[in-house]
Amino acid sequence: MAKPKKTPRPKAVTPKGFRDYFGTEVSERKQMLDQIAEVYHHYGFEALETSAVETVEALGKFLPDVDRPNEGVFAWQEDDSDWVALRYDMTAPLARVAAQYRQDLPTPYRRFAMGPVWRNEKPGPGRFRQFYQCDADTVGAPSVAADAEICAMLSDCLEKVGIPRGDYIVRVNNRKVLNGILEGLLVDNEQTRALPKDFEGMLESKASDWEFADPDAILRTIDKFDKVGEAGVLELLTTGREDQSGAFIDGVGLSKADAESVIAFMKARGATNADTIKNLRSLMGNSEIGEEGVSELEEISTLLESQGYGPDRIVIDPAVVRGLGYYTGPVYEAELTFEVTDEKGRVREFGSVAGGGRYDDLVKRFTGQAVPATGASIGVDRLLAALRATGRIGSKAQGPVVVTVMDRDRMNEYMTMVSELRQAGIRAEVYLGNPKNFGNQLKYADKRMSPVAIIQGGDEAERGVVQIKDLILGTKLAESASVEEWKDRPNQYEVPRDQMVAKVREIIESYS
Amino acid sequence: MAKPKKTPRPKAVTPKGFRDYFGTEVSERKQMLDQIAEVYHHYGFEALETSAVETVEALGKFLPDVDRPNEGVFAWQEDDSDWVALRYDMTAPLARVAAQYRQDLPTPYRRFAMGPVWRNEKPGPGRFRQFYQCDADTVGAPSVAADAEICAMLSDCLEKVGIPRGDYIVRVNNRKVLNGILEGLLVDNEQTRALPKDFEGMLESKASDWEFADPDAILRTIDKFDKVGEAGVLELLTTGREDQSGAFIDGVGLSKADAESVIAFMKARGATNADTIKNLRSLMGNSEIGEEGVSELEEISTLLESQGYGPDRIVIDPAVVRGLGYYTGPVYEAELTFEVTDEKGRVREFGSVAGGGRYDDLVKRFTGQAVPATGASIGVDRLLAALRATGRIGSKAQGPVVVTVMDRDRMNEYMTMVSELRQAGIRAEVYLGNPKNFGNQLKYADKRMSPVAIIQGGDEAERGVVQIKDLILGTKLAESASVEEWKDRPNQYEVPRDQMVAKVREIIESYS
Repeated sequence: MAKPKKTPRPKAVTPKGFRDYFGTEVSERKQMLDQIAEVYHHYGFEALETSAVETVEALGKFLPDVDRPNEGVFAWQEDDSDWVALRYDMTAPLARVAAQYRQDLPTPYRRFAMGPVWRNEKPGPGRFRQFYQCDADTVGAPSVAADAEICAMLSDCLEKVGIPRGDYIVRVNNRKVLNGILEGLLVDNEQTRALPKDFEGMLESKASDWEFADPDAILRTIDKFDKVGEAGVLELLTTGREDQSGAFIDGVGLSKADAESVIAFMKARGATNADTIKNLRSLMGNSEIGEEGVSELEEISTLLESQGYGPDRIVIDPAVVRGLGYYTGPVYEAELTFEVTDEKGRVREFGSVAGGGRYDDLVKRFTGQAVPATGASIGVDRLLAALRATGRIGSKAQGPVVVTVMDRDRMNEYMTMVSELRQAGIRAEVYLGNPKNFGNQLKYADKRMSPVAIIQGGDEAERGVVQIKDLILGTKLAESASVEEWKDRPNQYEVPRDQMVAKVREIIESYS
Repeated sequence: MAKPKKTPRPKAVTPKGFRDYFGTEVSERKQMLDQIAEVYHHYGFEALETSAVETVEALGKFLPDVDRPNEGVFAWQEDDSDWVALRYDMTAPLARVAAQYRQDLPTPYRRFAMGPVWRNEKPGPGRFRQFYQCDADTVGAPSVAADAEICAMLSDCLEKVGIPRGDYIVRVNNRKVLNGILEGLLVDNEQTRALPKDFEGMLESKASDWEFADPDAILRTIDKFDKVGEAGVLELLTTGREDQSGAFIDGVGLSKADAESVIAFMKARGATNADTIKNLRSLMGNSEIGEEGVSELEEISTLLESQGYGPDRIVIDPAVVRGLGYYTGPVYEAELTFEVTDEKGRVREFGSVAGGGRYDDLVKRFTGQAVPATGASIGVDRLLAALRATGRIGSKAQGPVVVTVMDRDRMNEYMTMVSELRQAGIRAEVYLGNPKNFGNQLKYADKRMSPVAIIQGGDEAERGVVQIKDLILGTKLAESASVEEWKDRPNQYEVPRDQMVAKVREIIESYS
C-alpha cells in the first residue's frame, strides 16, 4: 500500500536578503535613533511617520514599459487595481506628503523620519533588503542657511551618538560650482579614441566637430577619483584608458585643458575655507552659476563659523563628488576619519556615514510647482558598525538577575523575590523552564548573561537566608561546576532573606 | 492639430487604508512603546526585531487551493519563485524564529516585539491596514507561573503608561475549565428547530440521536453574551433565536440543562478569587481537564497575590470568553473600566486594550515538536486613544522658539542666537522661509505652536537688545496683529542681547 502523502513541514527561514535582530542589536540601534531624533527635534524638526506602503504612482519608480514595476522595489498589484510598493527611501514619501498636505503644513516644513526601507536588490554580505534610514529635510526654505543648519545638525548628531570631535568631518561642496566649471566645456563629436594626440590643437579644430559636454558623463568619471587616481581621471575625461583587465574604457572626450580644470576644481581645497573659496573663485571665470555656487559656499562657511562650527567639524571641500549628479545646490557628506581593521585584517578609513544636499524638484512631480528642499540621511547601520568597530558600543550586555527554582512548591516565594528585586529597579526573572536539572538553570543564567543568581533550597528557607551567586566573577568556573562546587565558591554569599535586594544591588553596582 | 498627450501628474495620496502620522502622534506613540518596552525588559524579556517580510510558507496563511495567498495578508511572488508577505502579527514571526534558532536561544525564551503589522482587509473608520502591535511572549515555559508573570506585567505596563490603578482590570480565565464544562455535552443530531419543546424530556431520548457538541459552535455563541444577554445566549445554545431583523438563527442544540451549565460557568465569578475557584470547582463534576484548569487558576491567583497583585488589579473571571477558541490554557484580557464619551456623544466603557493566553502549538508546525508558549499583545493604538479620551496625553505640544528674520543680511546673528538657545537646552529654530512679509513669520510661529518669538531689527541690534515675544500669552491677539501692534503689547519684552537666553527660559518655565 502506498504511503499517504504527507504535507511537508514549512521551512523556518528568514526570507532571502532579510535578517532578524536580537536583544542588544535592537536596543543599540534604538538608542542611536533616539539620540538622533533628539537632536533633530531640538533643531525644530517634527516627526513624520508614513506607512510602509505607497502607491507605485506616488513613489515614481514606475517604469511604464514594464509589466510589473519591480525594478529595485517590492511591488504588487491590489485586486487588479492599484500597484502598491514598499517605500525604498524616506524622500519619496516626503515628496508625497509635502504635496498632499501642502495647505496644512507650515512653510518651511522641517521634518525627520526614521524607519525601515526596502530594496528589491540582490542581497550581498552586509547588504540587506530591509534597512534603516534616518532622514531630516527642510522643504520650502530657499536660503542656504537651511543647508548650513543641516550640516551643523549632522555634526551634532555624530557627537551625540558618541563619535568624538576630530574623528569625523562634514565636507561641503556645491553642484553649482561644478556647473560653473562645466559651462561651455565641449567634447569632440567624433570617436574620441581616434583623435589627434595633440590636445591643444583640438580647440582650434572647427566648432561643428564639438558639442557641449554631457555633465553626467563627467560626474560619473570624477566619481572614480578614489579608484583610479588623478592620472586615471585625466585619461578618462579625455581619450580613455585601459583598465586592469586590459579592456579599453572610452574617454569623455574633453580637451586636456578642460579636463585639467575639472580636476583643478576637485583639488581646490586650501588650508582654510577662505583659501578654498579663493581657489574656486579663480576657477570660475565669467560663469554666473559658478559664482553663485562659490558665494553660497562662502555664506555657508560664514554662517557655520559664526555658530562655532569651525573646520575641525565642517569644511568646504570640492573633492566631495558623490551625489553631485542628483543634487542641484550644496551637497554634504559626513565621514568618519579614523581607521578600522576590516574582517580581512586590512586597515582602512571608515568613510561616509551620512550625506545629503539640496534638490529642487521634490514636489514638482505632483503639483507642477518647484519647491526648494534640502536634507540629509544618516546611515544608521554603518554608524552602528563604526561604533562597534571602535568598541564604543557592544560591551557585553548585562542580563537579568535569575532567581533559580530549587523547590517547585515554593514558586510563590521565588516570584515574591523577583517582584522585590524589580520593585527595587533591578531587572530580574524567575527560572521558568523545567526546574528538575539545576545545572540547566545555571547554564540558562549563563546564556542570559545574568550578573547574579539567587538560590534558596528548603534548608536556606528554614534558616531564613538566600545564596547569592556572583556570576560575573563566576563565569569562567560556571561551565563545569556542579551545584555543590558552585555553592562552595567564594563568589557566593549567604545573606539573610531581608538583605537579598541590598546584596544584589551591591554586586551589580560593583561592576558598573 | 491634436494636442500632444501629456503624462498626467501622479496623485499625491496615501494608499487606501493607510495613514500618515505627524509630530506628537508619532512621539506620543513612541513614548508609550518605550514605556512598555522598559517594563518588558525589566521582567527579563529580550527585544526581537524580525523583518517586515516573511515567506508565506512560514507565515502559514497560505491557502493551498487559492492561486494567490492574499486572504488577509499582503503577499506577492518574487521572481516566479517564493511567495512572500508582510507579517500580519508578531506571533507568526516568533514561531518561525523559535524554530529557526532553537539551538541558540535560551529556554525559556522571553521576547518582546513591537512594530507595525499589515492586514489586507477592508479598511473602515479607525481601522487601518497598518497598525502597531506590542507583544511579549515566553516560549518553552510549561508552568502557569509564566502566565501569572504576563498578567502582572500587563498590569505594570498599564500603570506605567498612565492608567491609574482602579481604572483598569486584568481578567483571567482558562480554556481548560470551559473544556471541563463542555466535556460530555451532547447535541441533538436532528434539526434542532424541530425538537420537542420539553427540554427535560430530551435527555431521555435515545443516545443515537445525539453527538458530542462542537466546542467551536458553543464558543462562538457565548462570545455573543455582551450583545444578546443571558437569555439570548440560552436560546442560541439550545433551539435558536429570532434576531432583530426577524431572521431565525439556528441554535447549537444543547439541552436546556447543559446550556445552563455553560452559562453558569460564565457567571461563576464570586466576591473573591477564592469564591470564584470554589464556584468553578463545583461545576467541574468529574472532569479531569476541568479540575486541572481550576487548579491552574488557583495557582495563578496565589502567585499573583503573593506578589501583591490583588483583585483590584487582576481577577479570575470566567466571563472572559474572547480568545478561548484559540488558546489552550489560561487566557487574559486587560480592560479599561472607566467610561468615555464616543464621537456620537454616547457614554460607554472603553473596554479591552490587551489580551493573550497560552498556546502550545507555536513551533510544532515547523519542528513537529509541541512547545508551550504564553504571551500577550497590547493594543497600543487603542491605549493611546484611551489616554487621549481622558486628557492624559495630547495636551498642546510646545513648538520651538522661533528666531525671526528682520534683516536678511544679519542671518549670521540670527543663527548665532538660535545656536545659543539650543546650547542652553532650548528647542529653537531660525525662520527659513522668505523673510519679506514679517506677518508670515508670526503666522508661521503660530502654526508651529512656538512659545516664544525673538525679534531683532537694525534698531535693536544697534542698541544691543532683542524683543522677546511671549506667544502663549499672545496667541489670541496674534491672528490679526500687525508688526507694530505686536511690538507694543505688554507680552513683549525688550532685554539686552546677553540676557536673551535667560529671559526665554523664564517665559518657557513659567508655563511648564
